[in-house]
Amino acid sequence: MAVLTRINGPRDLDPLGPQQLEELAAEIRTFLVDAVSKTGGHLGPNLGVVELTIALHRVFHSPQDRILFDTGHQAYVHKLLTGRQDFTRLKSTGGLSGYPSRAESEHDVIENSHASTVLGWADGLAKANELLDRDDHVVAVIGDGALTGGMAWEALNNIAAAKDRPLVIVVNDNEWSYSPTIGGLANHLATLRTTDGYEQFLARTRELLERTPLIGRPLYETLHGAKKGLKDFITPQGMFEDLGLKYVGPIDGHDIEAVESALQRAKRFRGPVIVHCITEKGRGYRPAERDEIDRFHGIAPIHPDTGLPLSAGGADWTSVFGDEMLELGRERKDIVAITAAMLHPVGLTKFAAEFPERVYDVGIAEQHAAVSAAGLATGGLHPVVAVYATFLNRAFDQVLMDVALHKCGVTFVLDRAGVTGSDGASHNGMWDMSILQVVPGLRIAAPRDADQVRAQLREAVTVEDAPTVVRYSKGAVGPAVPAVGRIGGMDVLRTPADGTARPDVLLVSVGALAPMCLEIADLLDAQGITTTVVDPRWVKPVDEALPGLAARHRVVVTVEDNGRAGGVGTAIAQALRDAEVDVPLRDFGIPQEFLSHGSRKDVMAAIGLTAPAVARQVTGVVATIDGRFVDEADEAAEAAEGKTAEAAPEIARD
Amino acid sequence: MAVLTRINGPRDLDPLGPQQLEELAAEIRTFLVDAVSKTGGHLGPNLGVVELTIALHRVFHSPQDRILFDTGHQAYVHKLLTGRQDFTRLKSTGGLSGYPSRAESEHDVIENSHASTVLGWADGLAKANELLDRDDHVVAVIGDGALTGGMAWEALNNIAAAKDRPLVIVVNDNEWSYSPTIGGLANHLATLRTTDGYEQFLARTRELLERTPLIGRPLYETLHGAKKGLKDFITPQGMFEDLGLKYVGPIDGHDIEAVESALQRAKRFRGPVIVHCITEKGRGYRPAERDEIDRFHGIAPIHPDTGLPLSAGGADWTSVFGDEMLELGRERKDIVAITAAMLHPVGLTKFAAEFPERVYDVGIAEQHAAVSAAGLATGGLHPVVAVYATFLNRAFDQVLMDVALHKCGVTFVLDRAGVTGSDGASHNGMWDMSILQVVPGLRIAAPRDADQVRAQLREAVTVEDAPTVVRYSKGAVGPAVPAVGRIGGMDVLRTPADGTARPDVLLVSVGALAPMCLEIADLLDAQGITTTVVDPRWVKPVDEALPGLAARHRVVVTVEDNGRAGGVGTAIAQALRDAEVDVPLRDFGIPQEFLSHGSRKDVMAAIGLTAPAVARQVTGVVATIDGRFVDEADEAAEAAEGKTAEAAPEIARD
Repeated sequence: MAVLTRINGPRDLDPLGPQQLEELAAEIRTFLVDAVSKTGGHLGPNLGVVELTIALHRVFHSPQDRILFDTGHQAYVHKLLTGRQDFTRLKSTGGLSGYPSRAESEHDVIENSHASTVLGWADGLAKANELLDRDDHVVAVIGDGALTGGMAWEALNNIAAAKDRPLVIVVNDNEWSYSPTIGGLANHLATLRTTDGYEQFLARTRELLERTPLIGRPLYETLHGAKKGLKDFITPQGMFEDLGLKYVGPIDGHDIEAVESALQRAKRFRGPVIVHCITEKGRGYRPAERDEIDRFHGIAPIHPDTGLPLSAGGADWTSVFGDEMLELGRERKDIVAITAAMLHPVGLTKFAAEFPERVYDVGIAEQHAAVSAAGLATGGLHPVVAVYATFLNRAFDQVLMDVALHKCGVTFVLDRAGVTGSDGASHNGMWDMSILQVVPGLRIAAPRDADQVRAQLREAVTVEDAPTVVRYSKGAVGPAVPAVGRIGGMDVLRTPADGTARPDVLLVSVGALAPMCLEIADLLDAQGITTTVVDPRWVKPVDEALPGLAARHRVVVTVEDNGRAGGVGTAIAQALRDAEVDVPLRDFGIPQEFLSHGSRKDVMAAIGLTAPAVARQVTGVVATIDGRFVDEADEAAEAAEGKTAEAAPEIARD
Repeated sequence: MAVLTRINGPRDLDPLGPQQLEELAAEIRTFLVDAVSKTGGHLGPNLGVVELTIALHRVFHSPQDRILFDTGHQAYVHKLLTGRQDFTRLKSTGGLSGYPSRAESEHDVIENSHASTVLGWADGLAKANELLDRDDHVVAVIGDGALTGGMAWEALNNIAAAKDRPLVIVVNDNEWSYSPTIGGLANHLATLRTTDGYEQFLARTRELLERTPLIGRPLYETLHGAKKGLKDFITPQGMFEDLGLKYVGPIDGHDIEAVESALQRAKRFRGPVIVHCITEKGRGYRPAERDEIDRFHGIAPIHPDTGLPLSAGGADWTSVFGDEMLELGRERKDIVAITAAMLHPVGLTKFAAEFPERVYDVGIAEQHAAVSAAGLATGGLHPVVAVYATFLNRAFDQVLMDVALHKCGVTFVLDRAGVTGSDGASHNGMWDMSILQVVPGLRIAAPRDADQVRAQLREAVTVEDAPTVVRYSKGAVGPAVPAVGRIGGMDVLRTPADGTARPDVLLVSVGALAPMCLEIADLLDAQGITTTVVDPRWVKPVDEALPGLAARHRVVVTVEDNGRAGGVGTAIAQALRDAEVDVPLRDFGIPQEFLSHGSRKDVMAAIGLTAPAVARQVTGVVATIDGRFVDEADEAAEAAEGKTAEAAPEIARD
């Protein structure tokens, strides 16, 4: 690491010659494989942008010039070049964030890891530069995958409209998002690649490959297919220029000199310009280069030489869904699957292998996932849209106005719901059970274990006149939590000790928090507080039997792995009010804040979502209610005697 | 109406010859101007698609073939041709919907009036046809304006990927959405228009104009400008073909024969195809043709000859905002405005006239409005994003993950919030105060009158480290509602009768419902129920003084013009729980349903949001609480004696 350790900031790159830059690139690759195989993290995307990032920081002067990364998981190299070389606690509490972070560095701008946003940010920043008469540059780095997202189009359309407003767009084209990039755009990009310039680049690449350590496979041979026609050979800029954007490329994204030279040209151009760089995801790391299902996009700790995971890992929520989805696909021909560029991560690999014609990868395009599902449902099929919980936010309007308004039978399967932890604020799936509460007719299932995932998915796909949602956590699924009874549609997980006339607490457990809730009940029991634990299974609508059950307890407590604002607890509280059941309620969940990264366990502890913390609070509430109960009886007696118990409200006059 | 009255369904169009079709078109125009000038409604868009709709229904056989309209306000002609010719109660309770409606006709598919959705629907329906081996056709009609929306891009990218899946896209290109269509796409479409075919079409159009009644102005002269270069003359399909879509056009959208012939070609093509039709919004109605600010897009009742409104109308919420925004623009150079293709409807006309360089029309692209605002704010400006409340749903993820996560000072001004009524389910702004509750740091103002709009807008734009929202109703703003005092940040609108120790009801009024709340208080007063009325002004976060005030009342009642689920009432209820103030609360608002169209007054009455209805319910609640209060005192006494007041919970065993 002779060169890398001397880089304390981007300007330290300026004196380096070609040979040193190449050494630096090799050192960075070695560093990344070594560091990320220990901590886990995003490996493939960062190996692909080593040379590109070096060139960006040599040509543009951050932080005055704004270098913006879309979907910040490609920012590790940027971190290394801007003074952040301690990756030992990457994504852990107190360590480096897995994404850009304004708290870490003045060189970071966009922390948001939801894709396709960077061009919108760039447009705004370029407009600000123009209005405030600044000569600074704005550079946006966006993957070809992210270009499939609607936001990218909206931004391109706006950027292209201002011919004199400088803005450099670097398209980092590796033909992947989390899956191979799909659609008409991908085909067009493939055409752009099949140019003379590209052929030359290919030749240079092969040469380079033979010189670069760790690499032997001729990577680019398999990359490109059809050559569309003469026109695109002559005018490869095609679509981008039709929109009015200047096009530079294609450039070999692993040739620092070529990238620098293209960026210099782009920098001098006084208007919006696209620099089309061809890169390879996982470049320089054999296991990642051979990665047909993109296992190295983001990884858990692995052995650096083999690329194999260090821990075997048990069943996870995703694979339980994936297996049941395959079964359902065999049983019902009308079931189709939709993924937004995440076929493997959401567990659709097996379904896709057996029913390739019944799975649609729509690109990083959650809006289209939802609205095309409405069309499929109207056409007589039952779509299952599988996305990460946090990404459904992108399709809120479509779930509401296309799927629900038209009473379409579409099932949304939300993976990585609740606290996911290590990926930070934008990856926690803490919004879905709140915003979906407002959608008329929509039903939400929060399965507590693997059996319930299977059962509730099956229940969901039978609903043909409304959207259904099945949401579950990230990672390993816990042991089965059996029901000991049923009230209405709710599973009773625990009944209070025999003979209790009116138990103290009705504990409503949501989804994966069932084991925690049982532990809370044990802790309360130890305090002499009698507790019933129920799992409503379907948390929207509120089970009709819940208010009646609540009325037979002294306090209702809800515990959910979702933001507190507008979540399941508030829905239950409203249902109790509507039934005129004014039993005190306390709702526990994720505080309505952007949470810092850290392991799920660390984050849950930090926000007080642990059995001891909740039990302690509930104990306090029960004691207070007991006290107040007596006070109120006294007060009622006083009131009956005509005494005034309190002073008049203190109202300040204007 | 000799021809029109004989059309009971689309197949009645089949026997008509060219002359009769022309008569029909003229009759439809007369009908539309006559009918819509009486009821109000969308005039301009429908006058533009008369010939196009006739041709669509002659070439395709609805309902087996699916004819889909984007932004359904262009479906009046479709209604006339599918058996719906009674427009007398258009958009009123019991009358025709202003948009397609499945309840009205089997020929209607998409009811949603949010733009840019049709291509996604079409993609889904075409996929269903393919999987289920149906030969039926899918035809999507989309305006050039709607193509600026990201959803359209996501869909095009998917549609283009399936070369053998038939799907006809009709681009209804009138160069307008609600404002002239903007951006690179608009420029590209302009280029497409400047072809040989287009020149011929222009000549034909001029000829036609001279023959058509009501029309004299040579319309198209002003339409097109720059001719980009030889390439686009030869291959006008440009961008669309780059994506892999077959392109037919441009076609004169007012020449039935030409449109039919193009549609027939498209119908025979076994793959996705774009038919580019040039139409004129407002065609055939002089006042609308001269409409530079698009007043005739959607209208209140007008005089059919002059096009002038029948009622003068007082100040409305929009213009109060518009005037104050102009003032703010004069005072602060850092304030910029953003609109999503609705410059005039949201009240930015004056601001744009004085500060054209500080207003950005981003197209029908709410996502870009929000994310580019984050960029502008990060660049040192204060953006004010003015949109209709219901359309902000499109930008939920961007408000959360781009604006709020990055602590950007962006002000969102939400017009048409609450029940808007006559435009039906998708136009009611009943979602914003619920979904925005989950956004950390975001603050929501709900001004109750014109003074408060001005004051709270001013407060909002001073917040530089978090998003702010100012939301108000549609239409005329009521008289000023003065405060009689202040508690914390809340205005007291009414205090209970002197000497009341513990008033019965704390009535929390949200926004424009203040006059209704004062009326409720009067009605309660008449029942001997003492009531305090407060307006929190900022409804998120909940005012810190509210729990303490609530504790000094016996019942808290909240009234908001927003969906009940997760709304202001639930947020206040949660704040009371968190403060351990277990005073019973009842929250009134819009039931969480898709509401049928009708006047705001009719809809409010139907959902029980009137002063008498709320007062009646509150009276019942107070009486119940009184009763229970005594019961509980008794029960407490019993409990003290060791008696069991209730039976054990009825828990069914599995």
